[in-house]
Amino acid sequence: MSLIVQKFGGTSVANAERVMNVAKIVTDTYAAGNDVIVVVSAQGDFTDVLVEKQQEINPQASKREQDMLLAAGEQISIALLAMAIEKLGYHATSLLGWQAGFDTSSAHTAARIKRVNPARIQDAIDRRNIVIVAGFQGVNRRGDITTLGRGGSDTSAVAIAAAMHADLCQIYTDVEGVFTADPRKVENTKKLAEISYDEMLELATLGAQVLHNRSVEMAKKYNIELEVLSSLTKAPGTIVKEKTKMEKMLISGVAKDTEVARISVMGVPNIPGIAFKLFSRLAKKGINVDIILQSQGHDGKKDISFTVARSHGKTAVEVLKDYVLSQGASEILLDDHVAKISIVGAGMESHSGVASTMFEALFDAQINIQMISTSEIKISVLINEDDADQAVRAIHRKFFD
Amino acid sequence: MSLIVQKFGGTSVANAERVMNVAKIVTDTYAAGNDVIVVVSAQGDFTDVLVEKQQEINPQASKREQDMLLAAGEQISIALLAMAIEKLGYHATSLLGWQAGFDTSSAHTAARIKRVNPARIQDAIDRRNIVIVAGFQGVNRRGDITTLGRGGSDTSAVAIAAAMHADLCQIYTDVEGVFTADPRKVENTKKLAEISYDEMLELATLGAQVLHNRSVEMAKKYNIELEVLSSLTKAPGTIVKEKTKMEKMLISGVAKDTEVARISVMGVPNIPGIAFKLFSRLAKKGINVDIILQSQGHDGKKDISFTVARSHGKTAVEVLKDYVLSQGASEILLDDHVAKISIVGAGMESHSGVASTMFEALFDAQINIQMISTSEIKISVLINEDDADQAVRAIHRKFFD
Repeated sequence: MSLIVQKFGGTSVANAERVMNVAKIVTDTYAAGNDVIVVVSAQGDFTDVLVEKQQEINPQASKREQDMLLAAGEQISIALLAMAIEKLGYHATSLLGWQAGFDTSSAHTAARIKRVNPARIQDAIDRRNIVIVAGFQGVNRRGDITTLGRGGSDTSAVAIAAAMHADLCQIYTDVEGVFTADPRKVENTKKLAEISYDEMLELATLGAQVLHNRSVEMAKKYNIELEVLSSLTKAPGTIVKEKTKMEKMLISGVAKDTEVARISVMGVPNIPGIAFKLFSRLAKKGINVDIILQSQGHDGKKDISFTVARSHGKTAVEVLKDYVLSQGASEILLDDHVAKISIVGAGMESHSGVASTMFEALFDAQINIQMISTSEIKISVLINEDDADQAVRAIHRKFFD
Repeated sequence: MSLIVQKFGGTSVANAERVMNVAKIVTDTYAAGNDVIVVVSAQGDFTDVLVEKQQEINPQASKREQDMLLAAGEQISIALLAMAIEKLGYHATSLLGWQAGFDTSSAHTAARIKRVNPARIQDAIDRRNIVIVAGFQGVNRRGDITTLGRGGSDTSAVAIAAAMHADLCQIYTDVEGVFTADPRKVENTKKLAEISYDEMLELATLGAQVLHNRSVEMAKKYNIELEVLSSLTKAPGTIVKEKTKMEKMLISGVAKDTEVARISVMGVPNIPGIAFKLFSRLAKKGINVDIILQSQGHDGKKDISFTVARSHGKTAVEVLKDYVLSQGASEILLDDHVAKISIVGAGMESHSGVASTMFEALFDAQINIQMISTSEIKISVLINEDDADQAVRAIHRKFFD
């Protein structure tokens, strides 16, 4: 007998039929002899309904009240799923974040889980109940409702799996697992049977959107085995764990990220400290910089280019403009029509030639590379956004066909 | 400076515009120098939306999960009202039942308030916040969410008023106060400036539907002054308190109750104990009997008629049929086409002739009286349901024109 945590996203419980489908998956797992803890998100677009209600009344409402409002979404879905499980003849206990022992920081709308005290979960498990826990939410030390922000429900599931020493944490979603590229855009993609935490982290960062980084980081920290799979098909998903058997596989995926913009500061005087001051100004505003490219410089001048999140593009230019011009730079340019294409794979550490294969694929497709960035298990290139889908297809074909 | 509790029902917060209207009432009261605690119900028909969601999945769901589901309704409305108050530039703190200290029994869907621990309410008041409390809900000793059943939000408001020693508890609703009869059905009705707890209790029982009895009983017990008023007009409402200045007024209202059925057991042997055994059988099934009429008996036989809630009519006949027939009764009849018309007034204790004035009004209107019941401050008659509205108008005209 195993203890299995199963997490279902909003799409999986969007309506009565879907809720019954989830109840079937859960009770089948239980009937096979396992203890089951289920973590659920709010139904389908119900969070949007709540946000719309807020927008009509006060778009600038305090974050404490935003959390109070949004947390109602999971309350509805856990109750409905518990009812569906009862309908199938099993005992179920739904628990809100505070009931399930989710103590969080007080950072409303983006709280961090400080600890999970699973006493009530354990009590219900001991009574042979299927436990349904509201994802995405907790309570701070004052007893205020908090929410965990983006990827919160996945993180809730992994935190419970860690606190309860679960044997497996299954993340049910609307895709069948982790693929070598986006199956909607690229032909002949392959579902990965296994992937390592680090590779999954790189893919998540790169916009693969299957699992949120916070949950993967926590799973890595507590060594929780994850499985990403679909609630609508019976197919096995992708296992995410520390060591995989797939190390012979050179790369595990090709990802595209269009939420990126390039900023170029032209003609900066080639004196020490300029780049440091420039990036520290951005850091103070909470703007993260990703790829950085600095020209060699000539005539005592150099160009500095870097990428930021597209949503930060205009702000970054505003923050820097007066400073760089006062330092003698000729101009500052924003290009928010770029895309970052990356390949990820633990195998590239021990194999040379991966980068050149990638560049060859882009050259064959006549796609110009603007910037390059590499890490131990990742190679990213910045290209024109119009070429992005073609680039992913060309690289995927080169490595996987 | 006073401490005022204001309760708003679902209609008063049905949409964004209504929520803003409530926020205006609340902040005006606060700006006048009062501390304000607000109790809110779920928005408009949102409870129906939740019940529908349940019906699609499992109409026989456990009551614990029903409470979990329904309690989400007030969570949404308290957050929205707090946001609306923030929009107007004031500080607000919304609190769920468990946060506001509502300890209840474990009778899910019909829990009783055991105590209110208002520590968090007091803390927010001390910080000069307007406090918004979710009505209708609490938490049992296990930490499970409970709901209070019908009239729950009114009861929540009165319980907070009692626990916080409030100076006044205002119940905002969609009528302007307590009237001498239903203004939609009867001409020339008058809004009462004041009414006593006992009169209000009788009117509530009789279907006047302005306040639920539980809340009035609690207000009486703790001597909380209530005001019933409309959230849509600025007019003063009706004050409900122990002693009123209106004692010269003979009767305070005429009420109609059509949720009633008459059962007649014909030809029962005139031996001791029959009536006792009959009513104890009903009591065991939780069926309350209201008006009872027993004929004098002749030939060793008598007839027993009584009224029950209409929803219990068929069950009551089933419970009794075999027993009364085995005891020699000739037949048992159900008439669910009756109505109970009542006049209520503390003044009738010290005035004779009230009953005869009522009967004269019915005689003038050619309406037949089937049964009569009286208490110190109430006279009720049972008549054919078809005559009910005409009877109310005739009686109201006689006493108030």
